[in-house]
Amino acid sequence: MLFHVRMDVRIPHDMDLTVREETVAREKAYSQELQRSGKWPQIWRIVGEYSNYSIFDVESNDELHEILSGLPLFPYMDITVTPLATHPSDVKA
Amino acid sequence: MLFHVRMDVRIPHDMDLTVREETVAREKAYSQELQRSGKWPQIWRIVGEYSNYSIFDVESNDELHEILSGLPLFPYMDITVTPLATHPSDVKA
Amino acid sequence: MLFHVRMDVRIPHDMDLTVREETVAREKAYSQELQRSGKWPQIWRIVGEYSNYSIFDVESNDELHEILSGLPLFPYMDITVTPLATHPSDVKA
Amino acid sequence: MLFHVRMDVRIPHDMDLTVREETVAREKAYSQELQRSGKWPQIWRIVGEYSNYSIFDVESNDELHEILSGLPLFPYMDITVTPLATHPSDVKA
Amino acid sequence: MLFHVRMDVRIPHDMDLTVREETVAREKAYSQELQRSGKWPQIWRIVGEYSNYSIFDVESNDELHEILSGLPLFPYMDITVTPLATHPSDVKA
Amino acid sequence: MLFHVRMDVRIPHDMDLTVREETVAREKAYSQELQRSGKWPQIWRIVGEYSNYSIFDVESNDELHEILSGLPLFPYMDITVTPLATHPSDVKA
Amino acid sequence: MLFHVRMDVRIPHDMDLTVREETVAREKAYSQELQRSGKWPQIWRIVGEYSNYSIFDVESNDELHEILSGLPLFPYMDITVTPLATHPSDVKA
Amino acid sequence: MLFHVRMDVRIPHDMDLTVREETVAREKAYSQELQRSGKWPQIWRIVGEYSNYSIFDVESNDELHEILSGLPLFPYMDITVTPLATHPSDVKA
Amino acid sequence: MLFHVRMDVRIPHDMDLTVREETVAREKAYSQELQRSGKWPQIWRIVGEYSNYSIFDVESNDELHEILSGLPLFPYMDITVTPLATHPSDVKA
Amino acid sequence: MLFHVRMDVRIPHDMDLTVREETVAREKAYSQELQRSGKWPQIWRIVGEYSNYSIFDVESNDELHEILSGLPLFPYMDITVTPLATHPSDVKA
Repeated sequence: MLFHVRMDVRIPHDMDLTVREETVAREKAYSQELQRSGKWPQIWRIVGEYSNYSIFDVESNDELHEILSGLPLFPYMDITVTPLATHPSDVKA
Repeated sequence: MLFHVRMDVRIPHDMDLTVREETVAREKAYSQELQRSGKWPQIWRIVGEYSNYSIFDVESNDELHEILSGLPLFPYMDITVTPLATHPSDVKA
Repeated sequence: MLFHVRMDVRIPHDMDLTVREETVAREKAYSQELQRSGKWPQIWRIVGEYSNYSIFDVESNDELHEILSGLPLFPYMDITVTPLATHPSDVKA
Repeated sequence: MLFHVRMDVRIPHDMDLTVREETVAREKAYSQELQRSGKWPQIWRIVGEYSNYSIFDVESNDELHEILSGLPLFPYMDITVTPLATHPSDVKA
Repeated sequence: MLFHVRMDVRIPHDMDLTVREETVAREKAYSQELQRSGKWPQIWRIVGEYSNYSIFDVESNDELHEILSGLPLFPYMDITVTPLATHPSDVKA
Repeated sequence: MLFHVRMDVRIPHDMDLTVREETVAREKAYSQELQRSGKWPQIWRIVGEYSNYSIFDVESNDELHEILSGLPLFPYMDITVTPLATHPSDVKA
Repeated sequence: MLFHVRMDVRIPHDMDLTVREETVAREKAYSQELQRSGKWPQIWRIVGEYSNYSIFDVESNDELHEILSGLPLFPYMDITVTPLATHPSDVKA
Repeated sequence: MLFHVRMDVRIPHDMDLTVREETVAREKAYSQELQRSGKWPQIWRIVGEYSNYSIFDVESNDELHEILSGLPLFPYMDITVTPLATHPSDVKA
Repeated sequence: MLFHVRMDVRIPHDMDLTVREETVAREKAYSQELQRSGKWPQIWRIVGEYSNYSIFDVESNDELHEILSGLPLFPYMDITVTPLATHPSDVKA
Repeated sequence: MLFHVRMDVRIPHDMDLTVREETVAREKAYSQELQRSGKWPQIWRIVGEYSNYSIFDVESNDELHEILSGLPLFPYMDITVTPLATHPSDVKA
């Protein structure tokens, strides 16, 4: 089941630099593990912003919330989730 | 080069039904031809709305505008285009 | 799987009165059948508005879109869907 | 009398961690006591956000404000209250 | 129990003039009967707008919705309802 | 001459607690003196928010600004003022 | 007593041309009479828009509403009124 | 003196097709004459929208309003004007 | 050439009080010098807000930006500039 | 390929003054190098704001994001990117 997610990262300017770098590194590892598992099949950078559009493929709303709230940067992000359905014109459907 | 596009369809309620059906049919054919060509690799329905999120893969801004303004439903849609870049965490990049 | 849905009804003022009444009657029957089936467990009127908040309990995003786009008033409504997860403080969870 | 409430939690990033954990624990206990009393019959997590949708069942506006302003996280939340009425299509009404 | 209500009137420009005048006259009579009953204790015109701020004093959310949805101009108004509680500084409370 | 005022209080989380309590106490005394003088005839709490709707009855715009800018919490509030006129349906006018 | 007013004119595209021209002419005469009386001391066109910013100098909110609601284009305008006070830095005050 | 202008074209769907085509043709001629005169040095299409960003180079606000309000499509456009100043980093300044 | 300007002052709550008072005093002197020169012919306080509406009369956009960016409170203000043209109904034009 | 970019600078008030000045100086050098290379052909100050409108001319979305995210002030700016296409009325196209 697919969901469209927008994440806007707002790390406080006064965060300790070491903590920041370590958190961003953990975020990357966490994301890549989910990408490899197939749960997070797509991620794109929005040009000019510290933001991404992503597609998630999960079993349930609960699984998606567990994944998103487990993001190391979750406390510093605004996240918007949109449920997706098959489009009637989709040639792959 | 990838672009994220949101399309919200707002067909006037007083449009002639035959014209409407014919236009929607042409829209579907137009979209599917572009999907098959690889220019419009993804399209999803937004749940509960007469709207879609799509990904376009084009050579230039001009090509994208030519494609979008050629949509049979273009006069009846609100369209928002967001340029996408490779995300540094993308395992496929 | 639960979804929170807000529906705002905007029937055009110039709709034929008989068509309007017949559509609203079909909407009611459609809604009540879904309520009885357990797919649409809750519906409340928003005070002062021709709008409702509803809870849907469905198997998938596709099923929810099929239900919502099948509403007789669908062409005349603005619909916003929010996926819900179990709250960690919910005593019933 | 039913009310629909949205709560968005915005705890300052520099709050002392012990104070934060203690406040969140008190919030949970406070909420669960009200849920068990029947005043707060439903609570759902909004997927991807530190937010909830809730239904309250109270005697009066004053009682609802007393409950909400007593929330341990009240100073750190944006709260929106919407009064609900019986929907004419509600099969349980 | 008090509620704050804002009403913005948007009568379509092409409404038949006789129907319009008759509807506005019924609206006035309806409002004045409720004012005299004590259910609608206050109404003010917003300067420069075809809008009002009102205070309603009712027994329940259901009663308020019944009153508001019964307004002859209800199909042509945007209405926003805000529940009110006693203010701790109110000298009359 | 009547004005409708909305006040949203946003006291910074790091304000010294003694200063805060003293300021809130002064705000209450200031408000109650104006209520008793007839300048501030009504004040209601907005349910679920640290906000109020108020009615002011003053001689001029200058007098209203002098009153509002003298509020002890003025530096910590967002204030919106709307001038009110007599409503043609008001039975008390 | 001064008020800042913004008026945005939205004449329906299907208004009869003669009615339109006659209404616009009456609007101009009405405005100029008020300007000459001193009630409407200033009016500026907003560049690129069918809109104006104006200053009104009236005795009361009721007088201002009477003036504004009497504008021949009133049914076709969005109007926003802001009460003005003397600025403490104003060298003319 | 430079101004940044955004124009969003909203031609009513029921406009007569001949009138529409004739108006759009006049708009093009009007724009090109101003471009050649140096008053309208730049114009770009916004991808996916019936809109443009333009730069105007005029002597005064009055001249700009005269130009914009003279556009054949002026009654069918939303226009936003932003005055521009020399940027301190501009290598051409 | 006239411009309409709105300034909203947002001085940080933790600014040193002496610095604050000195900055506000310099702001007043700067404003009054410009008022006396005829560049800043009008300034009004917006009732209930730490904001003003002003009219500037300058030779060019560059001159206006130089004036505004030189305001001692410029780093602590949100400023919106609207170019004004002569209104066709203005009796003084 | 052209892109329209708006940048709003929001440097935290408590940033060390030396760091601030050094960052702003590096921003200027970075911008001017890109202007001279032809990648950033135009930049204008928005009157009254610490903001600019710019035009970028790049090979791809990825190149634009690399340029923008490399701005020394990138962590302190809100950036909005709009892809541009050739306008059919452009006399230079």
